[in-house]
Amino acid sequence: MAKGKVLSGAGLRGQVAGKTALSTVGVSGSGLTYRGYDVKDLANNCQFEEVAYLILKGKLPNQAELDAYKAKLKGMRSLPQALLDVLERIPADAHPMDVMRTGCSMLGNLEMENDFSEQGEVTDRMLACFPSIICYWYRFSHDSVRIDVDTDDDSIGGHFLHLLRGEKPNALHEQVMHVSLILYAEHEFNASTFTARVCASTLSDMHSCITGAIGSLRGPLHGGANEAAMELIENFTSPEHAEAEMMGKLERKEKIMGFGHAIYSESDPRNEIIKGWSEKLAADVGDTVLYPVSVRCEEVMWREKKLFCNADFFHASAYHFMGIPTKLFTPIFVMSRLTGWAAHVMEQRADNRIIRPSADYTGEDLRPVPTIADRA
Amino acid sequence: MAKGKVLSGAGLRGQVAGKTALSTVGVSGSGLTYRGYDVKDLANNCQFEEVAYLILKGKLPNQAELDAYKAKLKGMRSLPQALLDVLERIPADAHPMDVMRTGCSMLGNLEMENDFSEQGEVTDRMLACFPSIICYWYRFSHDSVRIDVDTDDDSIGGHFLHLLRGEKPNALHEQVMHVSLILYAEHEFNASTFTARVCASTLSDMHSCITGAIGSLRGPLHGGANEAAMELIENFTSPEHAEAEMMGKLERKEKIMGFGHAIYSESDPRNEIIKGWSEKLAADVGDTVLYPVSVRCEEVMWREKKLFCNADFFHASAYHFMGIPTKLFTPIFVMSRLTGWAAHVMEQRADNRIIRPSADYTGEDLRPVPTIADRA
Repeated sequence: MAKGKVLSGAGLRGQVAGKTALSTVGVSGSGLTYRGYDVKDLANNCQFEEVAYLILKGKLPNQAELDAYKAKLKGMRSLPQALLDVLERIPADAHPMDVMRTGCSMLGNLEMENDFSEQGEVTDRMLACFPSIICYWYRFSHDSVRIDVDTDDDSIGGHFLHLLRGEKPNALHEQVMHVSLILYAEHEFNASTFTARVCASTLSDMHSCITGAIGSLRGPLHGGANEAAMELIENFTSPEHAEAEMMGKLERKEKIMGFGHAIYSESDPRNEIIKGWSEKLAADVGDTVLYPVSVRCEEVMWREKKLFCNADFFHASAYHFMGIPTKLFTPIFVMSRLTGWAAHVMEQRADNRIIRPSADYTGEDLRPVPTIADRA
Repeated sequence: MAKGKVLSGAGLRGQVAGKTALSTVGVSGSGLTYRGYDVKDLANNCQFEEVAYLILKGKLPNQAELDAYKAKLKGMRSLPQALLDVLERIPADAHPMDVMRTGCSMLGNLEMENDFSEQGEVTDRMLACFPSIICYWYRFSHDSVRIDVDTDDDSIGGHFLHLLRGEKPNALHEQVMHVSLILYAEHEFNASTFTARVCASTLSDMHSCITGAIGSLRGPLHGGANEAAMELIENFTSPEHAEAEMMGKLERKEKIMGFGHAIYSESDPRNEIIKGWSEKLAADVGDTVLYPVSVRCEEVMWREKKLFCNADFFHASAYHFMGIPTKLFTPIFVMSRLTGWAAHVMEQRADNRIIRPSADYTGEDLRPVPTIADRA
């Protein structure tokens, strides 16, 4: 049924499936906005916790509100013993997104959202403890250590890096985490967010909505492009080598991840931000290969295909310079996008009708059930 | 924004979101068909395993195929120790659908779908072991016993009843489970199935798709109507009492679950089937209250509101007569609908475009980020 692929409505592309006050994507003159603020403006001037507050609670916090919010999140990092026990039973070769999905789901058993009046609290709890979940599993399964997830780091990104690497991050790394988490926080009706909204439309609980969204983000057509970009660029030893290999890939029509976008047509507004930070990190660690290789890939793709880097491409080198294992790139996406998912769930709940579309039937006409002796 | 509720497109109602060869719902002359067979014809003539085979593999099995399929499923009932450990850490007061969601997600960590070529195998595995998951947790948390989930029962429904009650079910109960699981197996683009398809459209794994679908089915607007029906009817001591109470509820405009349907307008074709079996079970257990009460509720709702019983209403009494605790009604729905969910995932994968709709933006216009000192 290849014919289905050319239908204009395939994948609901361009079809309005609901309303949102949370973001605009690809609107002329402002590439990406969260509640009316340009994502570049936010990334240049805010901490991630300010943006999470904005997305979840509707306004940018003043200093007192921000301080209180960060203090609250700081106090919600520890994990119940039953959840630690579960994480210890997930093998090292599991998919890290399956760990996030299971950790979130298990949390729902232990700290159920009893009522929608608790939606803000359970979301803040997830925001605070998702880094604990992924890092506890990672360090236990890979390094055989039981880490204390309850740190006094100032920020969510700092907490994550501290748990992962066993020491407090420097100011540059904490700053890059703020920027990265801001850039990934919200993106309208992408597939994982739409999953969360469909789930929310049955009036299910927040943990179900977020668990489902994690499962959708796991798919290689959605999350994971930054991991694929890393797997690409780590093979190249120099810009010249990258150029030759990229040209070969293009000639063989191989899929190259980290370029182009379903919604943006000319550029991804997030790229210039993370690219700038990747360059700073390269200088800081004395890199002379990965950043120049990444720049060359960008040049080749634009020159040959008029394809631009999306948010994922320079995230690969940036995360790598901070010592983050490639397999944890998509879980960072979860820590960030959780804000958008939860805010969409709240929005869906506030004006809900169950999402139940129809289908074109392409199957058999009505027929009688043959007796089992008469079946081929 | 109450205005949104009256838009014709709310909840994508009536909008075609894709194609399916799996079922028709509410088409004139055939209320519900699976691959062209009327659900009543299937429920009257088949075992659930035949219907699962039909939905998942595309044809009704002949005797040799059915025997082989049942033998295969029978050999897949045991659970890995790590999953048993997880289930033991879920408290007795957890929501049983959260247990199913977490059990399915954990299974994905231990038995990952590495490639879509494994989709049939991982689905059969879930079909065989979902009763093990819910019953192991239920019996451990409620009765403090570690049951052996590896039984030699002939069917999935029999396996479930055996684990739950600690003894092999009689022929009548095993037969009713076949019918019930057939009736709930598939229902086109309902919200949980659509959740599974959105997740599948990112090319995520089968466990993510099913985990997400379970989370959506958990919502009170979707699964759970049979539980709500039970909570309604168990309060009534006689048909006369039921009549008086129902009239009061109608007068107070209280929501009454188990009646009417978003798609069917005149009747739910599944009702007459399960109603007949509920009547047989009532006679078998010597019930003189619950079945007559249920019939009276049906009469009142039709007489007063022209609302018919949907599939859920007589399921409540039928399950109750078999000694199934009310809180396990929706997990049975999962054991059954798993077939439809997985078949939809396979169909989505075979002709995929990522499901990524658009949204109407209703939020703030572009505005600059104020410094934190300037915020209200």
